[in-house]
Amino acid sequence: MGSGYGENIKLTIFGQSHSEAIGMVLEGLPAGVKLDIDAIERFLARRAPGNSPLSTPRKEADKPVFVSGLSDGCTCGAPLTALIYNTDVRPGDYEPYKNVPRPGHADYTASVKYGGYADYSGGGHFSGRLTAPLCVAGAICMQLLSAEGITVKARIAEIGGIAGDEAQMLEAVAYAKAAGDSVGGIVECVVDGSPAGLGDPMFGGMENRIAAAVFAIPAVKGIEFGEGFNAARLKGSENNDGFRVSGGRVVTESNHAGGILGGITNGMPLVFRVAFKPTPSIALSQHSVELDKLTDTDVCVGGRHDPCVVPRAVPCVEAAAALAVYDAFLGRKREM
Amino acid sequence: MGSGYGENIKLTIFGQSHSEAIGMVLEGLPAGVKLDIDAIERFLARRAPGNSPLSTPRKEADKPVFVSGLSDGCTCGAPLTALIYNTDVRPGDYEPYKNVPRPGHADYTASVKYGGYADYSGGGHFSGRLTAPLCVAGAICMQLLSAEGITVKARIAEIGGIAGDEAQMLEAVAYAKAAGDSVGGIVECVVDGSPAGLGDPMFGGMENRIAAAVFAIPAVKGIEFGEGFNAARLKGSENNDGFRVSGGRVVTESNHAGGILGGITNGMPLVFRVAFKPTPSIALSQHSVELDKLTDTDVCVGGRHDPCVVPRAVPCVEAAAALAVYDAFLGRKREM
Amino acid sequence: MGSGYGENIKLTIFGQSHSEAIGMVLEGLPAGVKLDIDAIERFLARRAPGNSPLSTPRKEADKPVFVSGLSDGCTCGAPLTALIYNTDVRPGDYEPYKNVPRPGHADYTASVKYGGYADYSGGGHFSGRLTAPLCVAGAICMQLLSAEGITVKARIAEIGGIAGDEAQMLEAVAYAKAAGDSVGGIVECVVDGSPAGLGDPMFGGMENRIAAAVFAIPAVKGIEFGEGFNAARLKGSENNDGFRVSGGRVVTESNHAGGILGGITNGMPLVFRVAFKPTPSIALSQHSVELDKLTDTDVCVGGRHDPCVVPRAVPCVEAAAALAVYDAFLGRKREM
Amino acid sequence: MGSGYGENIKLTIFGQSHSEAIGMVLEGLPAGVKLDIDAIERFLARRAPGNSPLSTPRKEADKPVFVSGLSDGCTCGAPLTALIYNTDVRPGDYEPYKNVPRPGHADYTASVKYGGYADYSGGGHFSGRLTAPLCVAGAICMQLLSAEGITVKARIAEIGGIAGDEAQMLEAVAYAKAAGDSVGGIVECVVDGSPAGLGDPMFGGMENRIAAAVFAIPAVKGIEFGEGFNAARLKGSENNDGFRVSGGRVVTESNHAGGILGGITNGMPLVFRVAFKPTPSIALSQHSVELDKLTDTDVCVGGRHDPCVVPRAVPCVEAAAALAVYDAFLGRKREM
Repeated sequence: MGSGYGENIKLTIFGQSHSEAIGMVLEGLPAGVKLDIDAIERFLARRAPGNSPLSTPRKEADKPVFVSGLSDGCTCGAPLTALIYNTDVRPGDYEPYKNVPRPGHADYTASVKYGGYADYSGGGHFSGRLTAPLCVAGAICMQLLSAEGITVKARIAEIGGIAGDEAQMLEAVAYAKAAGDSVGGIVECVVDGSPAGLGDPMFGGMENRIAAAVFAIPAVKGIEFGEGFNAARLKGSENNDGFRVSGGRVVTESNHAGGILGGITNGMPLVFRVAFKPTPSIALSQHSVELDKLTDTDVCVGGRHDPCVVPRAVPCVEAAAALAVYDAFLGRKREM
Repeated sequence: MGSGYGENIKLTIFGQSHSEAIGMVLEGLPAGVKLDIDAIERFLARRAPGNSPLSTPRKEADKPVFVSGLSDGCTCGAPLTALIYNTDVRPGDYEPYKNVPRPGHADYTASVKYGGYADYSGGGHFSGRLTAPLCVAGAICMQLLSAEGITVKARIAEIGGIAGDEAQMLEAVAYAKAAGDSVGGIVECVVDGSPAGLGDPMFGGMENRIAAAVFAIPAVKGIEFGEGFNAARLKGSENNDGFRVSGGRVVTESNHAGGILGGITNGMPLVFRVAFKPTPSIALSQHSVELDKLTDTDVCVGGRHDPCVVPRAVPCVEAAAALAVYDAFLGRKREM
Repeated sequence: MGSGYGENIKLTIFGQSHSEAIGMVLEGLPAGVKLDIDAIERFLARRAPGNSPLSTPRKEADKPVFVSGLSDGCTCGAPLTALIYNTDVRPGDYEPYKNVPRPGHADYTASVKYGGYADYSGGGHFSGRLTAPLCVAGAICMQLLSAEGITVKARIAEIGGIAGDEAQMLEAVAYAKAAGDSVGGIVECVVDGSPAGLGDPMFGGMENRIAAAVFAIPAVKGIEFGEGFNAARLKGSENNDGFRVSGGRVVTESNHAGGILGGITNGMPLVFRVAFKPTPSIALSQHSVELDKLTDTDVCVGGRHDPCVVPRAVPCVEAAAALAVYDAFLGRKREM
Repeated sequence: MGSGYGENIKLTIFGQSHSEAIGMVLEGLPAGVKLDIDAIERFLARRAPGNSPLSTPRKEADKPVFVSGLSDGCTCGAPLTALIYNTDVRPGDYEPYKNVPRPGHADYTASVKYGGYADYSGGGHFSGRLTAPLCVAGAICMQLLSAEGITVKARIAEIGGIAGDEAQMLEAVAYAKAAGDSVGGIVECVVDGSPAGLGDPMFGGMENRIAAAVFAIPAVKGIEFGEGFNAARLKGSENNDGFRVSGGRVVTESNHAGGILGGITNGMPLVFRVAFKPTPSIALSQHSVELDKLTDTDVCVGGRHDPCVVPRAVPCVEAAAALAVYDAFLGRKREM
């Protein structure tokens, strides 16, 4: 299965790119919380295409409709359900890829897994579009975390190998687009204000929990916390974060650990980075196969493609992080 | 919580570094499987200290005792329980760290989480020693996978920033040790022979599942699949793996995806890399605090330390991978 | 939480009596199954009011709208989501019960649990109306079980203490209705054609699984399997079912066990009975309290009430049974 | 699977009647709780045989050994593991039943489920002996509940159809024993002092949770809450519990609901009754089959049998109830 997440809240995501609707059910929220629907919509707008010169100009209106879980605009304890209706549905467009899988996409693996019965239109349940309900859930968790003084903020760290300079990043995307190609990148996320003590030992560590949420975003191929892969190249004396007392509380002098020790938050900013592969949809001809005849062929993926998903992925990473952190936060309440 | 893993098998790991025993319960194994106990012990021996010039010469005899789940040496369907008794228990040694947390260890976060009641001896439930029962579970999963033609093999990819040359790696460890310091490294793991179709969409992808298992190993700070972070620097045309028919089946021409598309195995080798931070226990004086008085102090972590955990981590990574893959393999059986 | 069920399929039920919609997400269904939507609607019609002289004449059209999980009318592997829009929503009607809880209803306990923020309209998430999405899920499971030769059939065993004679049952309901009162009853359910071997030891037994599903139906206060409470009054020699070989397979001579031994099906019909309390909504004046003032008061529950829920509960019991049995059936596939 | 229970605490029970040990892992307990080991042993002694003139005189010393989860006698946050070593193991005694299943036992269903590889000795994992680790877990939960003012107390309500008079019950057991037969009975359990608000809607109701725990006890065939099956024969006006204010809090005038409305505790005593079938092991000859030859045969179950399990089941019912209530209690903490 796999469309569910959470130990203390339970998120279920449903829908396919071209089904009547996509959406989510979120169970376990506290009752009596006034949701800021505008803020949820603004958050969703950040992942919509057309916002950034770095992404495609196509426009979608992803407006969540809350069909259950609210009473007088407040959470009422019942599962919260939001739908986003798919208005611009053209299943026929994807008919060819049912038999000729697109490289880098889930067409082939979905075909094997579901014995030819997968919904191939627009990637079906594997579409990046399914990050919209993830963002609905994440936006709600961010509101709840914010009330506890915890903020979640991600940013583009790198695009096409270029860090820091946005003009150069833009150029890399434009260059790839002109060539019918695509680029990937890295998103960095910081969770600030988290108390020490979130997370559990072993499989319940914050790294495990965040990774298990973040890899739900299509195109993610790596995650690292604090120094991450760079820690593998440091000495213990360089990587350890010494403790100090500051303002009456325990802090660390540096934050190579990214705010996590033994899987549990230490009260310092929780920092992680996520690697996104380049968009698999490219205009260039690629090698593929005809699944019915088991013969080689070539495929050209038509249509408007986003030459770089990274800008739109930023709120998705925030959403996944907020979900994981809020779930751990609720678990911590049980202990106190 | 967090000491449990699995959807189709359920692993529960218990124990502290200096409790009477550590161990595991593994539920959901098929009945009638003759376990190769010798192979399990040989596997455990690989993570024991003293095997490699790269690790400490201290010796432990980690012999699992199976107290339930077997009948005439075969699995009988009941939960399988293995204990490893802790013979050389010296809780007193760690008394000082209860109040003065060691940098890079879980002493401080455990203290917060368990309100001062954590078992601090040897890291308690956060000790690297808890990877021994993980290895018992992993060795069993490897035997079951092997019967299906699936192998799991990890190797040291890098130590202290040095890749490839074992003599140079040895030197880096020796150098760190002499300086009272430590080094980290990278382990690469390959799962071969996996059928296409393992894993589930979104939160149930193989990346999510493997990451959720691997981060249970202490000192892991990053994981990447296939090209991983490097994919963020490639073009789509470079990173996509074209499909071809070979020997009557669909294969990819390259394996930048590390054998996973849309979270689901594509039948190519499943490849991932894991970053280990340098051992936090170092002989050098470090900054810490006295938790009771909330004042700054220094700490020297005495005793024999492993200047590099990477060699001993290799079987742990295999164990975590085998657990995740076998769990997904059983889930796949339900669909067929 | 609690709105989810299942180990091998996952059902999530959402909605309140007067929210925009109620519905369900069902994950883990096999792909490629052509759902018989007409049969689902016919099944739902059995729980709709107005079908039986034993229940209220009010009419609802509970038509499920499938917004995800289907492709060309077949399951596609993605979570299946069905909505039933609430068309006749009159939240205001229930305003009084927010402060003056109705005896026998969840008004008071919901008020405590959700700190006054529960959705009280029509019982909110606690309404019997939530059995409609349960019936959608159950109808689907029944189709899948039917393809395996397994049928689920419930019937009214008793109403108002009267067994067997439907005319007398009718009279008891009519009599209660005329008196502004209500009656309860017992539903018996038989699952036929189940193979031996379904269910798991201890907490995973078929009794545990079925009970955990059936108590989700409002008004259920008891469940018994096979001889049930009567077994407590039999001798071992009377209650044990001797084994015999018949038609080349092992059967039992009697079925006092209701088809379950050690929690696991033995291949005989699985039989259980469910006790329903009388409808708590009655026209008679009852004692209640004003929650805001903490003073005693009386309450008269206005509106049209169903003087006996038992006839409409019959398909709900079938649905819960089908859900539990199909979930166990999928679990069994993993073992074979 | 099925050997695990709990949403907020996780209990895993392992072992077979004649394996080296039986035991349990309990995860999610608060840290810093001083366990009263004597009280746990006294509780276990209540389920040991030989305590009552109503049960067999055979003696076992079920002494739990805590191998993890404690530090200085207090819970330390790590999973708590207790073993009970099986000292008097005679696997050979049960060899015959591998091929000739005993009526009323799980021999046959275990044989089907585990393809002939089940551990048949003494019922293996299906043995009543597995209630010993359940009682360890339950005794711990009772201590934790007791600190919150919540008590769990069960009693024999009926044996062999006789209610109330213990001398007559004794006679019924003695009579059955003399005849080589056995009797069943009913246990009633009351949870006192529970706050209102425990439990969740639908599948998470207290009835669902308690039933899911209680049916783990072998020989249980029915459960009812409050009036239970009798409620099916009452009028709404008889069965509804009117609300009143008493001592500044809301109470009900009667408790036909058994303290549960809409699955959630209402602050009144939680009351339920559990039906136990007569011990399946009887001295009389019974019909069985030879599984290898698929032919009819007769079986005489030798050895000392308990002609009535009900007295020893009383603490088991308390344990199951305490487990379910404490799990719900922890869940409630998350909401406050």
